[in-house]
Amino acid sequence: MPSQRDWIPDSSTSGFDGRLIGVTVESWGEYEREIVEHPGAVAVVAVDRDGYLNFVRQLREPARRHLIELPAGTREPGEDPIETAKRELQEETGLHGGVWQTGPVFFSTPGFCRERVHLFFVDELDRGEVRTVGDEVIEVVRWPIDVVSQRLGELEDAKTLVGVLLWLRNQTRLPTA
Amino acid sequence: MPSQRDWIPDSSTSGFDGRLIGVTVESWGEYEREIVEHPGAVAVVAVDRDGYLNFVRQLREPARRHLIELPAGTREPGEDPIETAKRELQEETGLHGGVWQTGPVFFSTPGFCRERVHLFFVDELDRGEVRTVGDEVIEVVRWPIDVVSQRLGELEDAKTLVGVLLWLRNQTRLPTA
Repeated sequence: MPSQRDWIPDSSTSGFDGRLIGVTVESWGEYEREIVEHPGAVAVVAVDRDGYLNFVRQLREPARRHLIELPAGTREPGEDPIETAKRELQEETGLHGGVWQTGPVFFSTPGFCRERVHLFFVDELDRGEVRTVGDEVIEVVRWPIDVVSQRLGELEDAKTLVGVLLWLRNQTRLPTA
Repeated sequence: MPSQRDWIPDSSTSGFDGRLIGVTVESWGEYEREIVEHPGAVAVVAVDRDGYLNFVRQLREPARRHLIELPAGTREPGEDPIETAKRELQEETGLHGGVWQTGPVFFSTPGFCRERVHLFFVDELDRGEVRTVGDEVIEVVRWPIDVVSQRLGELEDAKTLVGVLLWLRNQTRLPTA
């Protein structure tokens, strides 16, 4: 099934061209695909020196309500994902420093969207001042790490579930000595 | 921070109106949001009677390559998510019957998209004939359940990672007697 051919469409046209996203309509042989263009994102599983996992809680207009999510941000052209992640984490939560580990990269919804999420795991973060920019109104939510597994039901965002579930796996597989 | 107010935009206009997705541009006070409209999806963590976890592998045009994912499908208006899930699972993999359990519902990427994924866990599925419809070219990929945890790195789709990671958690927490 996999082959050496390049998977490229026969033709494509722009269906929408917005500030954050766009839509491309691609023609693949006898069918068409409507594809959301997105620059990609970073998300951070952020544990501080006091033993808390740090989330952000904000209005998500598509959901029509507030959601608890990993600190995250949109990728900037030409910027290394880890640099975006460090900047967004500090802007949204004030957290800085820490020991960084690169996690997996995954598609948020690959049937119709090109967004890929770069995940990072950080431990021993230091607290600092929050300085949100633009139109973001963000509340920092901190959970003690030992209650996280009981509060999974409060998480409704795919990247947050992926990050927290992977982090929980590492906690059980690598007990602190 | 949470309040009783309804979170609705001041106004909205259509930016794109496609076959599967659309884009709405919503005005929220002083800022705008570009939001992808999507009817929602179902996804199934499908274990058969022979002890295999069943995936599908298909070309994902937005990714420009083939991805391994949970059997999944788009919600149909007025149809109960579990019915969509049973139908899509049988169409894509031939699997039917089984013991069904309803899992969580989550947003795939709530910063700019309304899609929610309804997750289901099924055990003891029976095999049958595959009958794909429309433009789908789908290969069924089966992993013995005891190798799944070592092959997580092959999964690059958020809903698939969420489903498999939750399933792995249940496997360790509820050992088979």
